[in-house]
Amino acid sequence: MEKKIAILGSTGSIGKQTLEVIAALGEGYRVVALTAGGNDILLEEQVREFKPELAVLSNIEAAERLAGKIGTTGCTVKSGEEGQVLAATWPQADLVVMAQVGFSGFSPLVAALKQGKMVALANKESLVIGGAILEQMGLLDRKKILPVDSEHSAIWQCLGGSGSEEVSRIFLTASGGPFFGCTKKELASVTPARALKHPNWQMGRKITIDSATMMNKGLEVIEAKWLFGLDLDQIEVIIHRQSIIHSMVEYIDGSIIAQLGVPDMRLPIQHALTYPERTESRVDRFDPFGKKLDFYPPDRDNFPCLELAYRAAELGGTMPAVLNGANEIAVAEFIGGRIGFNAIPEVINSVMSSHTNVENPGIDDVVSADQWSRRKAAQIIDAQTGRMS
Amino acid sequence: MEKKIAILGSTGSIGKQTLEVIAALGEGYRVVALTAGGNDILLEEQVREFKPELAVLSNIEAAERLAGKIGTTGCTVKSGEEGQVLAATWPQADLVVMAQVGFSGFSPLVAALKQGKMVALANKESLVIGGAILEQMGLLDRKKILPVDSEHSAIWQCLGGSGSEEVSRIFLTASGGPFFGCTKKELASVTPARALKHPNWQMGRKITIDSATMMNKGLEVIEAKWLFGLDLDQIEVIIHRQSIIHSMVEYIDGSIIAQLGVPDMRLPIQHALTYPERTESRVDRFDPFGKKLDFYPPDRDNFPCLELAYRAAELGGTMPAVLNGANEIAVAEFIGGRIGFNAIPEVINSVMSSHTNVENPGIDDVVSADQWSRRKAAQIIDAQTGRMS
Repeated sequence: MEKKIAILGSTGSIGKQTLEVIAALGEGYRVVALTAGGNDILLEEQVREFKPELAVLSNIEAAERLAGKIGTTGCTVKSGEEGQVLAATWPQADLVVMAQVGFSGFSPLVAALKQGKMVALANKESLVIGGAILEQMGLLDRKKILPVDSEHSAIWQCLGGSGSEEVSRIFLTASGGPFFGCTKKELASVTPARALKHPNWQMGRKITIDSATMMNKGLEVIEAKWLFGLDLDQIEVIIHRQSIIHSMVEYIDGSIIAQLGVPDMRLPIQHALTYPERTESRVDRFDPFGKKLDFYPPDRDNFPCLELAYRAAELGGTMPAVLNGANEIAVAEFIGGRIGFNAIPEVINSVMSSHTNVENPGIDDVVSADQWSRRKAAQIIDAQTGRMS
Repeated sequence: MEKKIAILGSTGSIGKQTLEVIAALGEGYRVVALTAGGNDILLEEQVREFKPELAVLSNIEAAERLAGKIGTTGCTVKSGEEGQVLAATWPQADLVVMAQVGFSGFSPLVAALKQGKMVALANKESLVIGGAILEQMGLLDRKKILPVDSEHSAIWQCLGGSGSEEVSRIFLTASGGPFFGCTKKELASVTPARALKHPNWQMGRKITIDSATMMNKGLEVIEAKWLFGLDLDQIEVIIHRQSIIHSMVEYIDGSIIAQLGVPDMRLPIQHALTYPERTESRVDRFDPFGKKLDFYPPDRDNFPCLELAYRAAELGGTMPAVLNGANEIAVAEFIGGRIGFNAIPEVINSVMSSHTNVENPGIDDVVSADQWSRRKAAQIIDAQTGRMS
């Protein structure tokens, strides 16, 4: 039977790799809907190659341009959030891949889950910011949400069919990024160019900086908490420089199951697409002969973003939204050269400290908290750098 | 619901540890039958502690002594192979643990499987020698045979519910034993005392020598072939000095699942007992922080037993029985100080070379091959050492 797939965010890094995997899988997989933000040029190419029934661009002008160019192909073009929600609930789709960036992926996710769709989730913010809301809504069905992130896919693969009651703890592996072993003094002089060079993974700029600050791992801790129904003290972060073990599950009997492989996102993407089966892939094989794998505790003092994420997750409510929003601003300002590397956690800490947390928030609460957090972070940075706000 | 367990070979190393695990598990597990070869002293202690319905000793005099001593406890005492088969098919037993040493474990295994019993299999010879027969009889039901050996338990845990068609290959890890890295010249002067010191596992004398020659891993390759329905070229042996990763499965998509833990047989034993569930154990936890795991190819030139096992498995028929029989004699003669370490594979190789293989053997064929092989090995050793045969 053919598996029909909708991809939200098909022009981003994960979206493009998802299409690459689907093309390689060949028969048995068909793309029925594609969505993007504003990149009508690339979406047009994708529509011509994969022939979906629906194409959506959030940006209305971009959607009009696309509609003008592909008018005769039989592909419906829609725009805006309604278009994204339409793609997420497209009746023909068996699996919805959520590969958008940002919290705008949340409404389509809720819509897809409400319709009982299987979801392959690569959109971090939906869980980091919206996890508590999804749980309140009873939508955190772990049989319906398939993780795409390499660490969470690893945990999922290690769990097999086991429930969280058999899990003692999980180890989320972290490469440690380009600055593993650096002191705070050394980190003070880090340039954006150096921070953008990740030792093992090819990723976007924002996530590469998050990897250097360890915030990426902090956000993954929050994701793991919701995805697998674990307490925070069951989630350990462990530095593993080689990025070969992608994460591990320790069971209550003391047995540990780990997932290994070359660092290549096409592997977890394919696993989510082909689940519950596995099929051949074009991904390189990991050759263990002659290899060394090592493990270290994370340096929580010099990389405080990890602790900030644990604290935000523990406080819950709107605090994870505040953590995430402040981080986005701080990272952008670091890339722009306006603040130093160590200022990223300082800014986030300041913003979190001045936030009045809202418990059991609704969508509006987290959206306001996110906006407030970004404004507050910008104000703090402006005050520090002497710019006019 | 209470799980009722029969243990065949309860006075051996695995049998004793099985009882230890059952005692620790407490409620929910009950011993209904215990068997041993001739150790009525220890079996009496076990009967008094675990109160089984049936106790069996292969040795008739030992069985009579036991019956005399526990006459009033309500435990039936039987003897001989009929007694072992009775225990293996004991109607109350939900799970039969096969922890005997040697091919005498085969008939009870066949009887248990014919009755549809779940079997926790620690008896290597049943598969090494009898695997082909079990397959011919249609008794190799992988849902009924739960492995107890640490490597095979690891593979089983890594497989979850996956079928062999999704498996690309497996990696059986080997510590490499006490002589990893030694040259043939260095191995020539190895004493039994040094060979009996295994770096990581506490085991019996025979298996410890097998570990030093790599024959143990060779026998495990044959076991794995039958247990998991794999071709020999799908089974890789990999040296892993730390004995933390107990084995790995590589799937056709390139993903590898590994099972890790401290080297403690109580962990795989408990997994077989509690399967499909996992429960708390008293086994130490593996602490990965600060640890290094490394992997090397096996040294096939200086440790030829591994190749001999692959060759025997490839030839099939009665050859694995010949390999196993010749190895038992050679190891005993090495422990007795009559032959050197390097003579072990030489003797096995000579015996295998002069064996006329029987394809599609029956039980009688493998029993004769086993006996022939032992006589032949003894003759070769006698001729070499100048003893009268």
